[in-house]
Amino acid sequence: MRVWKLRNDWDVLRPGVYRQMLSFDENIMLMIVKIHPGACVPKHSHSNLQTGVVIKGKLLFRTDRGEMEISEGWSYYIEPNESHEVYNTTDREAVALDIFMPKRDDYTPYTRPPDVSL
Amino acid sequence: MRVWKLRNDWDVLRPGVYRQMLSFDENIMLMIVKIHPGACVPKHSHSNLQTGVVIKGKLLFRTDRGEMEISEGWSYYIEPNESHEVYNTTDREAVALDIFMPKRDDYTPYTRPPDVSL
Repeated sequence: MRVWKLRNDWDVLRPGVYRQMLSFDENIMLMIVKIHPGACVPKHSHSNLQTGVVIKGKLLFRTDRGEMEISEGWSYYIEPNESHEVYNTTDREAVALDIFMPKRDDYTPYTRPPDVSL
Repeated sequence: MRVWKLRNDWDVLRPGVYRQMLSFDENIMLMIVKIHPGACVPKHSHSNLQTGVVIKGKLLFRTDRGEMEISEGWSYYIEPNESHEVYNTTDREAVALDIFMPKRDDYTPYTRPPDVSL
């Protein structure tokens, strides 16, 4: 078993958007993302499948087909190459766990080795 | 995009252990697990890779190589066929998001279609 701890230092992905890379291998990559009130991840797409869960708060997800507010504990599934954008339109911090398959090569430089290997 | 909502009805996996299946496809399966104080998931293994994140509280993970308390926001990575057991030794509820690759055939009957497809 390998374990990645959450640290106090978050990467700044964009203004008001912070992330930490967690467990990963060639096929999967976990990333925790913290989005401050009013902040957003603008429209983008990637060939990786993206699924995940809103861990805290609420986030508005928008695709070319519509938009939806996703609450704590709900999961989302975004097809490869499906455009999406994410907004925190609330007045409190939101946190999501993003899961990419396979791992995103553009995020690989930000991964870190496990903190503990048993 | 597809969305699975969190419901008020949880499957009882074992005494004090509750789960809901979330997003999935052939290659990946997300499951949210709630473990009451004193409850556990006894030692088991499966051919699926299992990774995940503790979303709330703390959980003690034990493998044949040792044990470790995993805190909120930390992620774990359990190799295929690696024996593991999980305990909530605290006095408060703990919640984890488990991710299986590929999807677990034994859990497939408990999945549900997405609540929303955009």
